Amino acid sequence: MSGALDFSGRATASVNKLAGDIVDRLVAGADRYRVSVSRGSLGELLIDAGAKAAGGVEAGLLLTEICMGGLGRVSLAHSPGAAKWPFWLTVSSNDPVVACLASQYAGWSLQHEKFFALGSGPGRAQARVEKLFEELPYSDKAERVTIVLEGDRPPPAEVVTKVAAAAKVEPANVAFVYAPTQSLAGSVQVVGRVLEVALHKAHELKFPLENIVDGIATAPLSPPHPDFIQAMGRTNDAIIYAGRAHLFVKGSAEAAAELAKNLPSSNSRDYGRPFAEVFKAYKGDFYKIDPSLFSPAEAVVTAIETGETFRAGAIDEKLLDASFG
Amino acid sequence: MSGALDFSGRATASVNKLAGDIVDRLVAGADRYRVSVSRGSLGELLIDAGAKAAGGVEAGLLLTEICMGGLGRVSLAHSPGAAKWPFWLTVSSNDPVVACLASQYAGWSLQHEKFFALGSGPGRAQARVEKLFEELPYSDKAERVTIVLEGDRPPPAEVVTKVAAAAKVEPANVAFVYAPTQSLAGSVQVVGRVLEVALHKAHELKFPLENIVDGIATAPLSPPHPDFIQAMGRTNDAIIYAGRAHLFVKGSAEAAAELAKNLPSSNSRDYGRPFAEVFKAYKGDFYKIDPSLFSPAEAVVTAIETGETFRAGAIDEKLLDASFG
Amino acid sequence: MSGALDFSGRATASVNKLAGDIVDRLVAGADRYRVSVSRGSLGELLIDAGAKAAGGVEAGLLLTEICMGGLGRVSLAHSPGAAKWPFWLTVSSNDPVVACLASQYAGWSLQHEKFFALGSGPGRAQARVEKLFEELPYSDKAERVTIVLEGDRPPPAEVVTKVAAAAKVEPANVAFVYAPTQSLAGSVQVVGRVLEVALHKAHELKFPLENIVDGIATAPLSPPHPDFIQAMGRTNDAIIYAGRAHLFVKGSAEAAAELAKNLPSSNSRDYGRPFAEVFKAYKGDFYKIDPSLFSPAEAVVTAIETGETFRAGAIDEKLLDASFG
Repeated sequence: MSGALDFSGRATASVNKLAGDIVDRLVAGADRYRVSVSRGSLGELLIDAGAKAAGGVEAGLLLTEICMGGLGRVSLAHSPGAAKWPFWLTVSSNDPVVACLASQYAGWSLQHEKFFALGSGPGRAQARVEKLFEELPYSDKAERVTIVLEGDRPPPAEVVTKVAAAAKVEPANVAFVYAPTQSLAGSVQVVGRVLEVALHKAHELKFPLENIVDGIATAPLSPPHPDFIQAMGRTNDAIIYAGRAHLFVKGSAEAAAELAKNLPSSNSRDYGRPFAEVFKAYKGDFYKIDPSLFSPAEAVVTAIETGETFRAGAIDEKLLDASFG
Repeated sequence: MSGALDFSGRATASVNKLAGDIVDRLVAGADRYRVSVSRGSLGELLIDAGAKAAGGVEAGLLLTEICMGGLGRVSLAHSPGAAKWPFWLTVSSNDPVVACLASQYAGWSLQHEKFFALGSGPGRAQARVEKLFEELPYSDKAERVTIVLEGDRPPPAEVVTKVAAAAKVEPANVAFVYAPTQSLAGSVQVVGRVLEVALHKAHELKFPLENIVDGIATAPLSPPHPDFIQAMGRTNDAIIYAGRAHLFVKGSAEAAAELAKNLPSSNSRDYGRPFAEVFKAYKGDFYKIDPSLFSPAEAVVTAIETGETFRAGAIDEKLLDASFG
Repeated sequence: MSGALDFSGRATASVNKLAGDIVDRLVAGADRYRVSVSRGSLGELLIDAGAKAAGGVEAGLLLTEICMGGLGRVSLAHSPGAAKWPFWLTVSSNDPVVACLASQYAGWSLQHEKFFALGSGPGRAQARVEKLFEELPYSDKAERVTIVLEGDRPPPAEVVTKVAAAAKVEPANVAFVYAPTQSLAGSVQVVGRVLEVALHKAHELKFPLENIVDGIATAPLSPPHPDFIQAMGRTNDAIIYAGRAHLFVKGSAEAAAELAKNLPSSNSRDYGRPFAEVFKAYKGDFYKIDPSLFSPAEAVVTAIETGETFRAGAIDEKLLDASFG
């Protein structure tokens, strides 16, 4: 086992190694997953899962598993919660802090001239260039790394070079998997962030990450939309208005109760209309949106040291329907 | 990658190669899946999954995956929809036209003297003898092929010879997997056709198949019945009165809306009573039944090029209960 | 295929061989599953999945599969049934008698001085020291065996010796996987007994085991509690007040109807309050509790030879909430 020690002193698997195995499956089954595979100018591996390639829901499920660094279990099933939207993702992780924050969170701003994308996936945990990593002791040291991009094109050579240098690997050992939010694979992989969003909100609320020991979350598949803002809005609304997360945490019952109370998206001043409308109201300035909006609709938090469970929030089917159309 | 080009120009996996891998699992785990494996007089591989062999639900799930040429994801979970019938199959495919129509559809009439069975599964996509293949450019060219038979006995030598010749392989390279509709494995594999039935109905409605890019569907496990007509009735009713399908399609919103409206089984003049009764009312003449009855109860259709979703139909629990007994 | 003949004359897989493959996955992925692996004084393999090791829900799912001797399918998904508890396990088995009774049932009393644990898992089917095996013809003969212990410590050397001797293998070929009921993995693996509990109750009701051919069951994940009695209470209540099981049986409709009627936990005189209260009312004397309480809340039984389905019992959300807190 390759791997490093995380903050609780326990050994943790290499997220790039585990995700690399899924990338290999995607490449070997490129025809059945309908992704296209190529090498870029620096030898980097490029997997188009929804831009020119057809991709699909199945490719999106694999993208979600890649984003989580192989530490997540992702399934798709007929579920309750929204009369009009019968199919939901269930995402769980045996190591949600590493899977969701060190790997899945789209926190690496990758820009060069007109190219801009937020990088997610396990490569982040090897590059460790984001401020967030000051609080995440997890560090990966794999032979090859993977970055997932929510976008419709491969990164330019400068971005490839930057990622490879930060991760201390050759460009040929970097894989970029990309799919726009408007695509099926893209929408699945964003909705697949329902647990990650709960983790990130917990972090925003200054809940000690080392106290989050397990997590499961669910959200409905969102129907893609050809317009980027609408597409982004729907994937966010799937989580904000219909996501449900159950976290298992160490620490006091008070801290768990506080987390449950403050976690749901309904705590946000921007809660109450489809995300695309919120985004437009702020004239597309993402950073003016109340960050506390990015959270599941409902939170269930179990304090495993006391056995108490706290919950707040609820699915809002009307707002979900308003968003999904 | 073996495989051919389908109508959208993309490479597609070999359904017989993928299904062959699942057949290998079934053979290697014959004892745990409770199937019996033998070779017929021409060397053909015979897998009994529910006639003399016990088979079971698990064997039925594998049969469904074989039918779909390895291009489907099949799961079984506690689901909403029918108070009395808690366990439902969810079936999805990243390539529903190939998985469901070129492979899973039971469209190959295999007859010799008193033996009659409708062949389904990936072998059809290599033999390509049905009229349907005039509209399906997908063509497989694998070294061995698999045919699934809904029935209680292996095919006679003449049928084996016919299948092998049409698929251009030796009889020893043909696998037949069979289970009667009355068996657990048989009932699971028929209910597992819920997505295929939606695809077939779309085709009947002359919706352009190349515009169907993804699909997910669900239906409750139907309880087996020892009488063939009742057993067949129940598996059909699971789909007709409780199946839900979500298709993602290219093309105009109008075409998607039209598809959603016309897809549900409730559009059929024969909707409204258990299938076994319909069958008896037509004195067992299958071809007198309104073909539009064969469809899920509810259809959700998302036009991915406009972002709109249309739906029609609904689960009818009373009719489901009337059928399942 | 290794394996033996079970009572219906069919070959059955080696539960220790199949479970051993899952043990190997747990060991190879010890860091990702957060279990700790060591060798005991006699060379026995020790896997801590929730005592000093963190373990988690995912480890618990694998423990459930190990308990079932690899003959079960276990999934976790967003499910209906309890408004406050959205995530449920679905457990199915293609061979429920062998998977649940010969393997999963916690029936082997392992004691030495102050150490006491009930052993479950496939090793039981090779040791065959329990009275229950007089009625279970299944016998395993694998090169290595696995025992699962609900507890917080590894077994003493005397217990290792006893297990190895009974299973006729060297101590180095025995694996012990343990997790206390208070841990996440422990609570998952107990709730994962929902199908086993239905099988055991059927056996108590003297329903002929050879007539049970298939089964599926579901129950909500129970939140762990640091107190053993509360933890045990909750895992039991998940099954007693919210478990649903569907059995497929051979034999007469009368026998199936009788089984359905008598199976649900509501038939017990001790039904009606959280299990921890029942336990305390009997001053912790487990054997004073009415054994018929240990059963799913709801039973659905299909008589496959007549096609009739019978049901009784129902989920009691109020009691579930009272237990889960």
